[in-house]
Amino acid sequence: MIQKTVGELAALVGGQVVGDAEACVGSGATLELARPGQITFLANARYAPLVRQTRATAVVVPEAMECPAAQIVTGNPYYAFTRILVLLHGHRHYLRVGISPEARVHPTASLGPDVSLHTNVTVCEEARIGRGTILYPGVFIGPGTEVGEDCVLLPHVVVYENCQIGNRVLIHAGACIGHDGLGFSTHQGTHHKIPHIARAVIEDDVEIGANAGIERGSLHDTVIGTGSKLGSAVAIGHGVRVGAHCLMVAQTGVAGSTRIGHHCVMAGQVGIAGHLDIGNHVTIAAQSGVSQNIPDGERVFGTPAFEMSKAVEAAAIYKRLPELRQTIRELERRVAELEKRIEQKPSQ
Amino acid sequence: MIQKTVGELAALVGGQVVGDAEACVGSGATLELARPGQITFLANARYAPLVRQTRATAVVVPEAMECPAAQIVTGNPYYAFTRILVLLHGHRHYLRVGISPEARVHPTASLGPDVSLHTNVTVCEEARIGRGTILYPGVFIGPGTEVGEDCVLLPHVVVYENCQIGNRVLIHAGACIGHDGLGFSTHQGTHHKIPHIARAVIEDDVEIGANAGIERGSLHDTVIGTGSKLGSAVAIGHGVRVGAHCLMVAQTGVAGSTRIGHHCVMAGQVGIAGHLDIGNHVTIAAQSGVSQNIPDGERVFGTPAFEMSKAVEAAAIYKRLPELRQTIRELERRVAELEKRIEQKPSQ
Amino acid sequence: MIQKTVGELAALVGGQVVGDAEACVGSGATLELARPGQITFLANARYAPLVRQTRATAVVVPEAMECPAAQIVTGNPYYAFTRILVLLHGHRHYLRVGISPEARVHPTASLGPDVSLHTNVTVCEEARIGRGTILYPGVFIGPGTEVGEDCVLLPHVVVYENCQIGNRVLIHAGACIGHDGLGFSTHQGTHHKIPHIARAVIEDDVEIGANAGIERGSLHDTVIGTGSKLGSAVAIGHGVRVGAHCLMVAQTGVAGSTRIGHHCVMAGQVGIAGHLDIGNHVTIAAQSGVSQNIPDGERVFGTPAFEMSKAVEAAAIYKRLPELRQTIRELERRVAELEKRIEQKPSQ
Repeated sequence: MIQKTVGELAALVGGQVVGDAEACVGSGATLELARPGQITFLANARYAPLVRQTRATAVVVPEAMECPAAQIVTGNPYYAFTRILVLLHGHRHYLRVGISPEARVHPTASLGPDVSLHTNVTVCEEARIGRGTILYPGVFIGPGTEVGEDCVLLPHVVVYENCQIGNRVLIHAGACIGHDGLGFSTHQGTHHKIPHIARAVIEDDVEIGANAGIERGSLHDTVIGTGSKLGSAVAIGHGVRVGAHCLMVAQTGVAGSTRIGHHCVMAGQVGIAGHLDIGNHVTIAAQSGVSQNIPDGERVFGTPAFEMSKAVEAAAIYKRLPELRQTIRELERRVAELEKRIEQKPSQ
Repeated sequence: MIQKTVGELAALVGGQVVGDAEACVGSGATLELARPGQITFLANARYAPLVRQTRATAVVVPEAMECPAAQIVTGNPYYAFTRILVLLHGHRHYLRVGISPEARVHPTASLGPDVSLHTNVTVCEEARIGRGTILYPGVFIGPGTEVGEDCVLLPHVVVYENCQIGNRVLIHAGACIGHDGLGFSTHQGTHHKIPHIARAVIEDDVEIGANAGIERGSLHDTVIGTGSKLGSAVAIGHGVRVGAHCLMVAQTGVAGSTRIGHHCVMAGQVGIAGHLDIGNHVTIAAQSGVSQNIPDGERVFGTPAFEMSKAVEAAAIYKRLPELRQTIRELERRVAELEKRIEQKPSQ
Repeated sequence: MIQKTVGELAALVGGQVVGDAEACVGSGATLELARPGQITFLANARYAPLVRQTRATAVVVPEAMECPAAQIVTGNPYYAFTRILVLLHGHRHYLRVGISPEARVHPTASLGPDVSLHTNVTVCEEARIGRGTILYPGVFIGPGTEVGEDCVLLPHVVVYENCQIGNRVLIHAGACIGHDGLGFSTHQGTHHKIPHIARAVIEDDVEIGANAGIERGSLHDTVIGTGSKLGSAVAIGHGVRVGAHCLMVAQTGVAGSTRIGHHCVMAGQVGIAGHLDIGNHVTIAAQSGVSQNIPDGERVFGTPAFEMSKAVEAAAIYKRLPELRQTIRELERRVAELEKRIEQKPSQ
């Protein structure tokens, strides 16, 4: 296990040391679990009391504080800690195996240098796999599909025909790219399938969660923008365009042809209706159901979703609806009483 | 690429030509993207202004309008356009490979003529695969299961034992048919598994989305009716019976033993509780949570779901709950003032 | 088919016979479908009228009732019926095939006695598979992962590296264990992946539904406690700890680092936010969105979720919001009228 001094790590992340710069750490841990020889971090002020009693050797903090451990003070402790964790532990060691004899590669497909194809991989005609890309067992790459460089597709990922995967894309097990959406025209009670002649395009540096699904377009491409990260079981409809650097938490779904800007955050189980325009830097709270366009920078919540602070206020009143109704009944009684009394007083 | 005249296409769909019947088109596109040499369509009146400025050579419309392109006028433009798109582009060209030497077929299984089994397909004992059906890499067909004619099961589709798949069924990658539902009886804090002795039955012409799941029945069959189309990641519980020609958008879930009639539409992320009766021609808006029976023809929305127009009205008032509470507080103040004043006036 | 007398079955489950103890049954069925020669049960008092007209030969009931069939009277009819069903039908007969020549087992991996590896199974370096465990086609077991004894992993289940699966664990097709969660630190608009250095741990006697996903931990393990049963497409976030004997219905999602106690029930499509503490014996109604800690024994409903009876009352008032608003408008009119009249009466 690699060992680093607090001073070395501070230099890596551009932070200031408070305390023992020569102290050594070899691994990272949570505030709660960190033991001597480990480094931890404080990102949420709520947990500040835990810093004061930490057993860790070092802690990354946003500002110097009372604390038994050596501190690395830096503006974005979570990002600094991420970099330290990558240095100490590294990312997953993906398995490079060369070209397995049990991989099935069509003679017209092309493989870049240093490609790894595990057992039972299928690469169909005219498909292209870029330099250094690793396809785990059971991965299926359809005809004409291009996968860029340094990608990793975990077991059983399926990419249908004529799709485009950029560089450094990571796709977790069981995810599916480029299948058809629910595109049907209904005539006399029967649903007729509309051909899906457009592609699914996954840009560079995207990560896609396990068992997620990105439908191909019917008439125009589905696009997941550069650097966007999609969680487990996310479902993206046909023709959806997601901008760069978005985050979509698990089980979120977006219906067909909706456009989403860049740097948006969709918390878990969000649903977005089809044919909408969602701006840039939009935040959508968990389980919200979006049925209208959202302008840049807005934060929304609820089903149907609306502006966050109003939605939170409405939700708080909702919980007290029984009391509100009671107040209204009381008012009715009091008004009736007033009416009765005023009726009884003849005008003078 | 195939080329057709507007006149030929109008004849195909039974429409009337307005403009140049001899103009040629070779592909379809959206109103927004269509270029010369392409045909497009208008299905939603909202987009009518785009028709007037389209660059397309032809457009399918519900009625003749001011427009630079040749028009095909027909009652159901989306259906007509679907047929034209099928003519010009065709559906996906599924890969016929015969019987791969890496497919594993049990000696007691039976394969119809023209079956294609890709590499790593498993067909277990007593399973039957009908004429012309294509099983993509990694498909697993359990013991005793019957798959009909002209089906396509994309990579890694799993069908458990003793299930029944009709003819012309299309199942997208990663979908699972016939696994157990969450059937347990609880005794002294421990959950005991109840055997799932019934089947999952998928009738003719059904399409099932990527990573969807159709549980087998515990005591009576789960059934997906003829012509129904289920989106990505839909989850159907054990013993559910879905009627013919239903549409279920992505991530919808239906709990055990519920019956759904024919021609129902469930928008995305709908949840339906167990043991319910949902009528025919029912429409359920996205993200709704259905906890009660629904009669034929009803449209519902909300959690719990109720009649659509009332639910929309309630949702609109919900958004204004803060103002409503303010109004009530104001009323309380005014009533208190009235009470005070009336108290001060001694009855004469 | 096995045949048992009502008396034998009553002895098995410790119940009392009312009626013909010598009557024979060979299979189980629902109250609605049961025919002569079959046994059925009554668990929900709502269906009691069906007992009086059942065609079944025997019925398991909570108390003796007017009924044409022989009765087995016992305190927990559903559990008793489950045991009878297991006796008469058994559970799925899992396919034991020894070690397929097409399974790929790393030389450093270890296999216990009586392990079955189907075709196209991958067992990576240092992985260990316990006695009697069955891995179906396409199962992938990552480096260093341990799978206990008598487990069954259905086709295409993927378990990433260094995870731990207990004994008698049943994992349905397409489920994924130990993939990364959505763990990123954001710096200058770019999302940086945080290593996921902890494991996913599945304790004994757990069942996991088709296409479900259990993310590995980033800094501390994700744990699914002994005897818990998770439905189809459930998504468990990184670092979540689920206690023993919980039930999670299909499509439920739990965000990162939340702790859930034992014997909790989460109905379908529930969402639970991250970093929460959910007590023991908690019940969460379908589609609820939990955003706060929940104490032991509480039952909640709604988004945001709160105490069940209050939430049901609030939901009932919500449906009548249009009438409530009408009442308020009427009150405003009446109060204005009173104010006008009282103004008109000069104080004497």
